[in-house]
Amino acid sequence: MASVTAVPSSANAPSLKGSGDDVSTSNGMEDSIHSFKVADLVIELSQTHKAKPDLTNLVFGTVFSDHMLTIEWTNAGGWQKPHIKPFGNLSLHPACSAMHYAVQLFEGMKAYRGTDDKVRLFRPMLNMNRMAKSAERACLPAFDRAELVECIRRLVQVDREWVPQSDSASLYIRPTFLGTERSLGVKKPSHALLYVILSPVGSFFSTGAKPVSLWADSKYIRAWRGGTGDCKMGGNYGASIYAQHEAVDYGCQQVLWQYGDDHQITEVGSMNMFLFWNNENGEEELATPPLDGLILPGITRQSILELTRKWGEFKVCERYLTMADLRCALKEGRVKEMFGSGTACVVSPVGRILYQGENLHIPCQEDFPQLASRLRKELTDIQYGRTQSDWSVLV
Amino acid sequence: MASVTAVPSSANAPSLKGSGDDVSTSNGMEDSIHSFKVADLVIELSQTHKAKPDLTNLVFGTVFSDHMLTIEWTNAGGWQKPHIKPFGNLSLHPACSAMHYAVQLFEGMKAYRGTDDKVRLFRPMLNMNRMAKSAERACLPAFDRAELVECIRRLVQVDREWVPQSDSASLYIRPTFLGTERSLGVKKPSHALLYVILSPVGSFFSTGAKPVSLWADSKYIRAWRGGTGDCKMGGNYGASIYAQHEAVDYGCQQVLWQYGDDHQITEVGSMNMFLFWNNENGEEELATPPLDGLILPGITRQSILELTRKWGEFKVCERYLTMADLRCALKEGRVKEMFGSGTACVVSPVGRILYQGENLHIPCQEDFPQLASRLRKELTDIQYGRTQSDWSVLV
Repeated sequence: MASVTAVPSSANAPSLKGSGDDVSTSNGMEDSIHSFKVADLVIELSQTHKAKPDLTNLVFGTVFSDHMLTIEWTNAGGWQKPHIKPFGNLSLHPACSAMHYAVQLFEGMKAYRGTDDKVRLFRPMLNMNRMAKSAERACLPAFDRAELVECIRRLVQVDREWVPQSDSASLYIRPTFLGTERSLGVKKPSHALLYVILSPVGSFFSTGAKPVSLWADSKYIRAWRGGTGDCKMGGNYGASIYAQHEAVDYGCQQVLWQYGDDHQITEVGSMNMFLFWNNENGEEELATPPLDGLILPGITRQSILELTRKWGEFKVCERYLTMADLRCALKEGRVKEMFGSGTACVVSPVGRILYQGENLHIPCQEDFPQLASRLRKELTDIQYGRTQSDWSVLV
Repeated sequence: MASVTAVPSSANAPSLKGSGDDVSTSNGMEDSIHSFKVADLVIELSQTHKAKPDLTNLVFGTVFSDHMLTIEWTNAGGWQKPHIKPFGNLSLHPACSAMHYAVQLFEGMKAYRGTDDKVRLFRPMLNMNRMAKSAERACLPAFDRAELVECIRRLVQVDREWVPQSDSASLYIRPTFLGTERSLGVKKPSHALLYVILSPVGSFFSTGAKPVSLWADSKYIRAWRGGTGDCKMGGNYGASIYAQHEAVDYGCQQVLWQYGDDHQITEVGSMNMFLFWNNENGEEELATPPLDGLILPGITRQSILELTRKWGEFKVCERYLTMADLRCALKEGRVKEMFGSGTACVVSPVGRILYQGENLHIPCQEDFPQLASRLRKELTDIQYGRTQSDWSVLV
């Protein structure tokens, strides 16, 4: 039997103060949202505790913690009380619209344990903002973003022992939001389920921090104007697995998604892309494709732009980059580094791109190039609390 | 308690003979698929029976029959025995890849009860062919298509009383196929679940057989080259609901999806599109957009093309049609009819298209235009067994 505890609201006052990221709404509408509240949280603790895994050879996202957060919504009754309860299967109607029409979205964030043994989240409100935007696009109900961060903090508190004691590992947090309509018409769901699961993770790529290889081909297109490429909706991902297999067949690890007849570089599905180079005008520049609706607005991407702009050491630019730009710059020796960024991988250098039958070799000093290395250090210093920052939110 | 019956294989010999549609493979590979078999079917009958609904005001897909078919697959163990069992919720791991990455697809078909009280399927192998193609694109395992039709026939036999006694109603059949991988990496699933549910349905549109109104706008794009528009994958549908709401805000029922700078007419999500007109060369022509990867290859679409080509009364053409073509033809009085086709709606005339702020009125004599009316009759005559055809498969 599990114990059920109603947590008094006074113990749960939101405490996002200190975070430098937006906790208010951009349009002042949040107050009018009839959201779930952390004050209503019901906690049912698991009576069994799974063994913690050895993180050295752990495959990403295969082990889950003891608890999960679930919050139900119905059109008739609105948001229900949030529940933290033992991790377990979901019971879903076979007509569930998440399963037929991909009325679904997710987020990816992490909890990090510092050498001070404190556990921190990294800019969680940016995930909430993106999640709220995905929910609007998926026709799922609005919620109070700060309340959800507080619920997630409570979940991580409950499973605090699952946050690895390692500065190369973390507890991956997966908020998921499903339409659970119980009928077959393609329509706005009248039922929905928001839930959060936790998974201790080590390195994202099985090759560790080694440079990744990418397959750049325009046979498959990830996203397009008028689509959902800037939202974290499931449909963007499932359609990519087929192309991913083709990338592996060609001896590459991931797909570098292109767009348009000029083969614009967009993103890698699990990562945004950065090129550090001397641009066409001879300027030293860190460039990344702009958020034009085709690209997921990554939290790590935004943080890298903000950090490097603060440094003021080179030009930082959101601009279009084509494969021809890259090939030409490589030929002329103007490329310094290329790397991907994402919550799962943090910063991951790119060593090789297979494009039109040609292997483009990207400079990588000693496997981990200088700027990528510096950024990874600055970011993880903040994430693991070695550097004080208002991007950190204590759990 | 439910009774469990193992059905002997002799009772289940495949009997697709008589169907004019392809039951062999196009590439001769099917024999090598280690598929589930109807001979292994296990039937567990429900001890309770729900009341059959009144079909007059029934909303599409809201009521389900007493039983469902489920077939599990694992990478390690292959396909398991098919089960027919009481309709009920699915128990799914919270990391299920169908719910995070839309590794999912579905089909739509119907069982029709004739005045002879016999129950028939309409060209089920065409659904199976399309489902196999969607499965390949979604990286879900292959299966023997004829075996699945036989399993579906058995399911409809078990719930035979749910096939409405009406020639304006039918039993909608929804095969669904999910990746049920239990970890968070974006990858080919190691677990999958194929299931089929049944729903008695009346008219698809709430307006009945009245002409539908469409909103044609290029703000949202349903599908694109290099995507999944020609597969029945969930991601194509969930992303459309937002645009569907905008269509309703503009006073239209559905979105007419366009593509490209020249605003090509593609499809309506639930329907393929047909234009019956005098074309640019003055020829009487039935035209529908070609299957170029953007459009779902509809079974009703294919049947209409085959029927009208057999008639030989006018030109039948798969060709590109732009909104400019349509507007020009309307202005010159060359449009005779426009209609959509689909399993759910059969044939549905289009009465009005809102395009660039202008209402394009499509000729509709007495609500149901001549060719649409004739096609609907020919198709339903076959579906309800009033006309003998090798497109019908007896249940």
